[in-house]
Amino acid sequence: MLDSKNRSYTCFGINSTISIIKSDRFQVQKILIIKNSKAEKDKELNNVLLSVNPRLIKKVSHEKISTRFKSQGVSIMFSGKLIFDETTNYAKAEYSCLLVLDQVEDPQNFGQIIRTAECAGIEGIIYSKHHSVPLTDTALQVSQGAFVNMKFYEVTNIKNELKKLKKYDFWIIGFENSINARPWYSIDYSGKTAIVVGSEGRGIRKKVLESCDFIATVPMQGLTNSLNVSAATSAIVFERLRQKLEKK
Amino acid sequence: MLDSKNRSYTCFGINSTISIIKSDRFQVQKILIIKNSKAEKDKELNNVLLSVNPRLIKKVSHEKISTRFKSQGVSIMFSGKLIFDETTNYAKAEYSCLLVLDQVEDPQNFGQIIRTAECAGIEGIIYSKHHSVPLTDTALQVSQGAFVNMKFYEVTNIKNELKKLKKYDFWIIGFENSINARPWYSIDYSGKTAIVVGSEGRGIRKKVLESCDFIATVPMQGLTNSLNVSAATSAIVFERLRQKLEKK
Repeated sequence: MLDSKNRSYTCFGINSTISIIKSDRFQVQKILIIKNSKAEKDKELNNVLLSVNPRLIKKVSHEKISTRFKSQGVSIMFSGKLIFDETTNYAKAEYSCLLVLDQVEDPQNFGQIIRTAECAGIEGIIYSKHHSVPLTDTALQVSQGAFVNMKFYEVTNIKNELKKLKKYDFWIIGFENSINARPWYSIDYSGKTAIVVGSEGRGIRKKVLESCDFIATVPMQGLTNSLNVSAATSAIVFERLRQKLEKK
Repeated sequence: MLDSKNRSYTCFGINSTISIIKSDRFQVQKILIIKNSKAEKDKELNNVLLSVNPRLIKKVSHEKISTRFKSQGVSIMFSGKLIFDETTNYAKAEYSCLLVLDQVEDPQNFGQIIRTAECAGIEGIIYSKHHSVPLTDTALQVSQGAFVNMKFYEVTNIKNELKKLKKYDFWIIGFENSINARPWYSIDYSGKTAIVVGSEGRGIRKKVLESCDFIATVPMQGLTNSLNVSAATSAIVFERLRQKLEKK
């Protein structure tokens, strides 16, 4: 049995498989490729597969395959340390921006947030162990391989974690629809920053919100009152990137 | 039979049902509410339902229900003119920003884009009739009721439509990963603007790209090469909103 921090995962698709092998962070356990599939003919994938023990790669025929393979014809089973716990020394890691998810519940949203955050140069994601979606195969899958370039911290107490980050000179910015909240672009993201977003239905819990240095918001312009949490995260992390790139 | 521009649609959930009734744009055909569900107890929903002919509202017991109702216990069937065709006079409509989708294929992405665009104050969405996902029940559902506040134009030829928009003094901005593309924040969105995004796999078609006044991009910072199209759209439309709000 693998322990919870060194679990076994399964992903599908050419991009995910390439990312996982290239990252050199994981142990490949099994790769299945459907005969005559898009994956079997993919040049980059075949190139990357040269570094994998051939005994771990199995070609299978189309008839035996579940629908989960369908689109590209490759799956990878792998294990490794994907999740760190709260004993991590953030100072040593020298992060400039971390994302904190307070009880995000939907694996699709978690996966999209991982992908978007990685594209915007966020270095790590802290999420609560309880009342949150864990790092499931679905979340990894939706991230399209972005997870291999992200550090994950699964913590029992978000509030304590924010305190720790403050000690390491992070500014904590909570996102919440509130009259007192500042617009998202008026925040200065140039220092060490932790961006906190809350759950799909309830937002950030009050006790977590109290630990934030600033409360910011992405104000709604239409009749719909709320933005999907992954779309809001995209607006925020790319505003941070804009500020960073414009200063150069 | 309803014609294709005046189709019948079904949505689930409290927010969607409230939005559809309140918009006063559609004909309610049937509303089903599960007995003892969250929906049956929802004050705002019950208030809004007072304006609906009671004969169209049916209470049903839990046993008879498919899983599609599951989370909130309400579904609404409605019809109406949701989609306009390309003969529309854009000048008369006085839009300041439209979104153009060149062959977006996934209904989840389409729905998320509708929701995000509405939240960011975009007034209409133009999409190609062929090789694109149409405005399905799933897309409407994912938009969480935002579609009632959005104008949709289903057109046969995106390139012709862009030409027409240029005549009406729109600036056309295409988003594409390219060395010659300008960063997304360097574009001035203050005039009449049409923002063009492409399909999930292939981006904007070459002939459509040639009709754009500017090519812009959201540059990737990580190892993942591509952002989900709805996440990219979020970064873009909220950058436009930032420029608009900061100028005030």
